[in-house]
Amino acid sequence: MRRILVVGAGQSGLQLAIGLLAEDYDVTLVDPRGPEEIETGRVMSTQCLFGPALRRERRHGLSFWDDRAPAITGVGVRVARPDGDPEPEVDWVGRLEEPAQSVDQRLKLAAWLRVFVQGGGRFLRHRVSVEDLATVGRDYELVVVAAGRGELARIFPRDERRSPFRAPQRSLSLAYVTGAEAHPAGGVLSRTAVPGAGEVFSLPTLSPVGPCQAVMVEAVPGGPLDRIPGAGASGEEILAGILDVLRHHAPWEYERFAEARPADSGATLSGGYAPTVREPVAHLRGGNVVLGMADSVVANDPITAQGANMASLCAEVYRRAIVDHGRRPFDETFMRSAFAAYWHHARQVTAWSRVMLSGPPHVWELYRLAERHRPTADRFADSFSDPGGLIDWFLHPERAMEYVDSVRCATGSSHLPIS
Amino acid sequence: MRRILVVGAGQSGLQLAIGLLAEDYDVTLVDPRGPEEIETGRVMSTQCLFGPALRRERRHGLSFWDDRAPAITGVGVRVARPDGDPEPEVDWVGRLEEPAQSVDQRLKLAAWLRVFVQGGGRFLRHRVSVEDLATVGRDYELVVVAAGRGELARIFPRDERRSPFRAPQRSLSLAYVTGAEAHPAGGVLSRTAVPGAGEVFSLPTLSPVGPCQAVMVEAVPGGPLDRIPGAGASGEEILAGILDVLRHHAPWEYERFAEARPADSGATLSGGYAPTVREPVAHLRGGNVVLGMADSVVANDPITAQGANMASLCAEVYRRAIVDHGRRPFDETFMRSAFAAYWHHARQVTAWSRVMLSGPPHVWELYRLAERHRPTADRFADSFSDPGGLIDWFLHPERAMEYVDSVRCATGSSHLPIS
Repeated sequence: MRRILVVGAGQSGLQLAIGLLAEDYDVTLVDPRGPEEIETGRVMSTQCLFGPALRRERRHGLSFWDDRAPAITGVGVRVARPDGDPEPEVDWVGRLEEPAQSVDQRLKLAAWLRVFVQGGGRFLRHRVSVEDLATVGRDYELVVVAAGRGELARIFPRDERRSPFRAPQRSLSLAYVTGAEAHPAGGVLSRTAVPGAGEVFSLPTLSPVGPCQAVMVEAVPGGPLDRIPGAGASGEEILAGILDVLRHHAPWEYERFAEARPADSGATLSGGYAPTVREPVAHLRGGNVVLGMADSVVANDPITAQGANMASLCAEVYRRAIVDHGRRPFDETFMRSAFAAYWHHARQVTAWSRVMLSGPPHVWELYRLAERHRPTADRFADSFSDPGGLIDWFLHPERAMEYVDSVRCATGSSHLPIS
Repeated sequence: MRRILVVGAGQSGLQLAIGLLAEDYDVTLVDPRGPEEIETGRVMSTQCLFGPALRRERRHGLSFWDDRAPAITGVGVRVARPDGDPEPEVDWVGRLEEPAQSVDQRLKLAAWLRVFVQGGGRFLRHRVSVEDLATVGRDYELVVVAAGRGELARIFPRDERRSPFRAPQRSLSLAYVTGAEAHPAGGVLSRTAVPGAGEVFSLPTLSPVGPCQAVMVEAVPGGPLDRIPGAGASGEEILAGILDVLRHHAPWEYERFAEARPADSGATLSGGYAPTVREPVAHLRGGNVVLGMADSVVANDPITAQGANMASLCAEVYRRAIVDHGRRPFDETFMRSAFAAYWHHARQVTAWSRVMLSGPPHVWELYRLAERHRPTADRFADSFSDPGGLIDWFLHPERAMEYVDSVRCATGSSHLPIS
């Protein structure tokens, strides 16, 4: 049995570890937190999983919440007018072909970690240092680092050409709450763009206290939305800050969340990071090489809600690459090739995230078109399941304008007012 | 003769001091730098002055550079496509009804300071502290603080309601250069918007070495344009950073500036500030009250090129308020009333600057319209002379869309392709 070390028990690390265990690999998983600490800890993200990622979990017997997690059946887009106008400029909901689902990672990762251990996996509760990787790493045929965007990710050199950002482009504030009302259209991943200032997201989620709502503010640093207390603030203070932003910039969301309370004592999170793409291979002191995974090497802004989906995809791509590699050595060539297979998909999301962060003119025009043309709204929604198709109509202004023209011609422009 | 102290020898302070001297006030002007230090120091801004401000200077005999300063006859707007495409998405030049003009403030302020002293003004070369203001201030009937956005401005309490920004929204890098080519359309204040990432500006300027070009990058902090070295960098390093940004994001400007060299040893500047509106009156220890002026109380981002114009307007409004006030005491009521008269205009620029910083959907639509409709392009250009009219068609999405529709109807939409 080939010995593999996976560093980090998040969506990607656990999914890979469990997947390799099922293929009879000798898998060790190391993470500073065990199941109880994960369960009683702080929320980690909003993790809306779309069709392909959910099907992947079902195939691998990892989907335990289908009967309890609220179904997310659409993606809502609103564009705020300046200065807190009570009505948005754009307001529509695109339907998802397959429902999406959000399960608090405290539930999911704790359960998966138990599955891993019960399935014969070796779990070490330890915070891995770079020094550890250089020494302990030699006992394994392959070391995969799935440690998120933290300190350990820095062992992978930043890919300057693919990393235009040097500072966070959004300050993030997140709360899981009870006492909020559902979106008027039901189970909706709701997006409000406040041009130049950021975004507000909300979605129904299954948390440890049961179904609830999650709300996240993405604020341009120093801008009008960036008024939410961060480090050191209590959950109540963070939620109060979020509600204050909603009241002034997304009143349609404030209406839903006015009575919200934090779902539990760890139900809020705040922070920020510069979107960064890294080299997939790190050379450690002593000659050991390790492979980076998911967020540790491709960290996009959460603006496209793809983080957990890409983590799931990366686990799938790496698992296949490892299995297909047979008994050959897991050398740097293997690692670069495994990452290349992942990057083939991830780069689409990186490109999409950059477009969404910058909000170029053609995106607003597409949003306006979608309000009057349901297939465009639905196509946008389904892009969250399959971002690969966005290159054809959404990412670049030429293609976008060609698409807008083609829709207008096909439907007769008199039915599609231009403003 | 009423004794008035003006703190700060910039566009607004000097213009007010000279103006009051001409009205027989006993004026003291205090600034840490004398004429020689200003002349041999570092550039301070890009100061493009439009028609009304230039006419004001001519009326007051302060316009010494009309025969040498390059005439700026238009405002150019380009919108970059993503990823450094060699052609912009939008590209037009609106004509200015009255030419604009940019004179390096090192020339202008040094000359004006000499005019002030030769005209009988008392100039103190001193860096004023808050403590100074509280004590020395009592010897004057009115103290006006025109000290720019620096430390001293903090005596004026931040107006939270009018100050949505808590951090700089742009990192600014500026160079006056020789060896650059003119804009293809001649004397043009040229603007390139790189959606989500910032702006590039260029304009012809009269500097101490003669006519030259100024180029400025406004980079969203941490974003793709924010790669220019700042504090501690040499002029050559700052210019090299600016050119690198131009090459990748505004190649049409790079073509013009590829061979540029810093115009002199103080020809570059970098920095950034959070746009801030402050209360116009500061209460100092001991009971003294002072009046804030121009940038010290209304600091907008330079994205609308209005700083020097608003400084000029503020000097005019305050001079009139002081003269019209006759022999009555310059109490807090007077100060608030003088500021209110200024804010009546300044708020339009504050609103415009916020719109330009955020780049909402309707602005891109107006830019696209202007490319096919010259009166719209010209109207935009003339807004730099008179921003007050922007409220009717530019600032808010409803008015903007009404305007777009009205133009399309009036001209026949077949002549105005929508994309």
